[in-house]
Amino acid sequence: MSSPTSPQRAALGLDFGTESVRALIVDLQGNELGEASSSYRHGQIVDRLPGTNEKLPPDFALQHPTDWIDSAVKAVQGALKAAKLSGDQIVGIGVDFTSCTMLPAKADGTPLCLDAKLAGEKYAWPKLWKHHGAKEQTDRINEVAQARNESFLQRYGGVIGLEWFFPKILETLEHAEHVYDATDVWLEAGDWFVWQLVGGAAKDLPRSTCQAGYKGMWSATDGYPSRDYLAAVNPKLANVVSEKMPGRLCPPGSCVGGLVPDLADRMGLPSGTPVSAAIIDAHAGVPGVGAAEPGVLVMVMGTSSCHMLNSLEEQPVPGVAGIVKDGILPGYFGYETGQAAVGDAFDWVRRLTGHNDFKALTEAAAELPPGAEGVACIDWFNGCRTPLMDGRLTGQFTGLTMNHRAGHLYRAAMEASAYGVRWIVDLLREHGVPVQRFVASGGLPHHNPLLVQIYADVLGEPVEVHPSKQGPALGAAILGALAAGEKAGFKSAAEAVRSMAGRDTDTRRVEPNATATKQYQPLYQQYRREADRLSA
Amino acid sequence: MSSPTSPQRAALGLDFGTESVRALIVDLQGNELGEASSSYRHGQIVDRLPGTNEKLPPDFALQHPTDWIDSAVKAVQGALKAAKLSGDQIVGIGVDFTSCTMLPAKADGTPLCLDAKLAGEKYAWPKLWKHHGAKEQTDRINEVAQARNESFLQRYGGVIGLEWFFPKILETLEHAEHVYDATDVWLEAGDWFVWQLVGGAAKDLPRSTCQAGYKGMWSATDGYPSRDYLAAVNPKLANVVSEKMPGRLCPPGSCVGGLVPDLADRMGLPSGTPVSAAIIDAHAGVPGVGAAEPGVLVMVMGTSSCHMLNSLEEQPVPGVAGIVKDGILPGYFGYETGQAAVGDAFDWVRRLTGHNDFKALTEAAAELPPGAEGVACIDWFNGCRTPLMDGRLTGQFTGLTMNHRAGHLYRAAMEASAYGVRWIVDLLREHGVPVQRFVASGGLPHHNPLLVQIYADVLGEPVEVHPSKQGPALGAAILGALAAGEKAGFKSAAEAVRSMAGRDTDTRRVEPNATATKQYQPLYQQYRREADRLSA
Repeated sequence: MSSPTSPQRAALGLDFGTESVRALIVDLQGNELGEASSSYRHGQIVDRLPGTNEKLPPDFALQHPTDWIDSAVKAVQGALKAAKLSGDQIVGIGVDFTSCTMLPAKADGTPLCLDAKLAGEKYAWPKLWKHHGAKEQTDRINEVAQARNESFLQRYGGVIGLEWFFPKILETLEHAEHVYDATDVWLEAGDWFVWQLVGGAAKDLPRSTCQAGYKGMWSATDGYPSRDYLAAVNPKLANVVSEKMPGRLCPPGSCVGGLVPDLADRMGLPSGTPVSAAIIDAHAGVPGVGAAEPGVLVMVMGTSSCHMLNSLEEQPVPGVAGIVKDGILPGYFGYETGQAAVGDAFDWVRRLTGHNDFKALTEAAAELPPGAEGVACIDWFNGCRTPLMDGRLTGQFTGLTMNHRAGHLYRAAMEASAYGVRWIVDLLREHGVPVQRFVASGGLPHHNPLLVQIYADVLGEPVEVHPSKQGPALGAAILGALAAGEKAGFKSAAEAVRSMAGRDTDTRRVEPNATATKQYQPLYQQYRREADRLSA
Repeated sequence: MSSPTSPQRAALGLDFGTESVRALIVDLQGNELGEASSSYRHGQIVDRLPGTNEKLPPDFALQHPTDWIDSAVKAVQGALKAAKLSGDQIVGIGVDFTSCTMLPAKADGTPLCLDAKLAGEKYAWPKLWKHHGAKEQTDRINEVAQARNESFLQRYGGVIGLEWFFPKILETLEHAEHVYDATDVWLEAGDWFVWQLVGGAAKDLPRSTCQAGYKGMWSATDGYPSRDYLAAVNPKLANVVSEKMPGRLCPPGSCVGGLVPDLADRMGLPSGTPVSAAIIDAHAGVPGVGAAEPGVLVMVMGTSSCHMLNSLEEQPVPGVAGIVKDGILPGYFGYETGQAAVGDAFDWVRRLTGHNDFKALTEAAAELPPGAEGVACIDWFNGCRTPLMDGRLTGQFTGLTMNHRAGHLYRAAMEASAYGVRWIVDLLREHGVPVQRFVASGGLPHHNPLLVQIYADVLGEPVEVHPSKQGPALGAAILGALAAGEKAGFKSAAEAVRSMAGRDTDTRRVEPNATATKQYQPLYQQYRREADRLSA
């Protein structure tokens, strides 16, 4: 009765991206039974605040919290229908979410922006991960941390990021103090969504150790930054942790409660279905591609890229944004690195050059030799994440002559992206963190085989393209199965990963071209020199 | 009987550009009576050699000599028709030509590329001014000149240009010795065309002092570079001047002969019509806009720009490509400076960004503030002419973020062009050469008022846009009138300029915006620092 064709038990993964949420239903042997996605009604809010005519500053990127609930309900309904399952076959729910996407809420969980009195105030809205309004605040947070030689800096490569949790809180405090004052709970959007799923008082709200560790400057041994440090940043921030950050810290995969009746009804699931603590979307990709062993760089490639690695070594690496014990999978140090603009950057080049799709651009770029006939790119169109952690850095195209065309720019942008990955890998290895395999996942590697070839050529090593386009969603489903405990029956996270994501998949292995690898060597060195100059 | 409505006597100017030739007929009071232009059948030959499948190297830019004759015949016929004149009312012919556009010919004037034996050999063809194949040769020509401390270097700002006469000869000698050996006469295309007009033996062919002075390293006092110098560059080049450069040096405006019967017939002009020595197209623009006094920077703006200035001072200015006594008008030192890509660069940005015309780009660029919201450009897409004289330098766009669009690139390219002009003006003034007025001519300032405003704002001074779109063609016609001697009756070049181009025209004066000028100050400094870095 439990053959793959008539599954009895399955897990649900909810994967919250920048534009939409996907629901994926997978049985405990890793068969994908059904999926559906639903775009957020308001998408990314970057132009005008909903319901107002207020033009947002260029650094703003907001989201609408109601979209998350509404789209999740639609996606779950769609996935159940596609899987031809009834809700009571779902043993557990896992949630991954973009991060640090965060919001201010009231003690009962109501987002501040849904309070009519504050709806017209842009700082009351959820800030999307890519919101870049906290430049000054990030500077101060870093300066004070450096002056005080705060130990948390070591874990983050010496730099706190513009997109993280405390900079975004401080931005609101300093630009809209009344919003800060009206806030009872500051929290990650992923934690907020899980809180909505399981209900309960603010003091018990489940906060993910993954989000807290990678974006909230928290560690299991030291907790959050100290009151003294926060007071030195801004006196009013001193008590933010004790007064405005209630909740309990829960590792991804642990059960934080059961689904509340209201949402259970809307989604078509049984009330009380176990729910896992949230995980960052990129980090969910590591179990999602079946990477249970250390030394595998899992490149989750989309609008931006997150490169995750489990290691037995805890080695501080300059510029590596987060090293969190048990941050991705239990028993390993999880390393998080990333590139701020990848698919986003290519799409920007596409629009800049007046193309409706990538067909002609790809054909032109594919015909060019390594080095794009002299055109070189630095792809910091959205700042540089790893290793410079500086959202204010900008991109460039150099070496331009009248003979160059749009295809040259596109190829140069892809090559810059590959140099960025190689830089990260070089840094990890130079600091004693082994990197043995490269697995590409996310939508981009499937749509863009030329990009994967360029990555392999620049790295000089094979890149495996994982066939699931659902890497993070599958990872979330695995966490849902873990949260189900005995109902799923896995004895360890590694066992769940092997069973649900370790199948002999149609992984495509892209081999490097030795000639191209040789040609890229001096071009990569040139990229590094230019990156050094621009960040000096 | 000599009222403007029934002109008795008029002059013909032939203006040979990169894509077409224009014929302009003007009476001796400066009334434009008729004009016509004709595109070269083969245009710029940059892709494949006519009659072959040979793909040309990317640095090649050739032309077809038959095009010059055929298009000139058509344009003259068209201009006579438009002017409703009979040919015998034309008192003289002036010719301006792009430079250094040059070719190898036989002793009877036949271009080598029209010899069936050599037609398939790319080095036998006329090289257009923008042909950049002589990079190595230009390096050597400069190195040897510097090592020998050749006095001609002073006149050219210390650097011989990639696009000049001797580098282009040496390129052919070193890449296709059999073509060099088969050549009886190396000459400028403008001189070749005038030779076709007047006929005669090679030893008497009229070479323009303007072309020779600005592009051929010739001066009235020192002649061409010495045999010893040329031998040091390449032993085989030692006798090139005495053996392969026959002819007599003639100033523009002097009569070099009368029109030969064959071309007179084809053009519909009387045989024997006086013909002036040629002048470089840009230089013809100075009399063409009526600039008879010193201190007026005449900016002839088209695909590239040439900025010409007459001065009473002979001051060496680093990077200023040519200072020639009587090079533009008698009695002054003529200064030639230029920018390698202007209209060409904007057109390249237009194509790169997928636009069919400039309408949307211009609207977007006009809405942006000075500095294009952080996008900066170096517009060396065709190398840098003044002051760096280096065709190998390349262009760039920096400061790019995801919020930038095609309009930002376009505005940044226009601003870079304006910084380039200001750099030239600053250099001239710093070295004691007064610049008091700015006159923009050529097609570009008429089509692109935003560009003129940006020039005025960056310079912080008014720019006068001369209403004639025929600046160089009118200048050529004035030289034709001078060549006519008594039949036109002008006693001096200045008198001819005042009479034919000094009319109270509808010059548009574009005033600088003081706020923008202030905003551009630091941006210009940033451009200069970047230019210094790139050329270090």
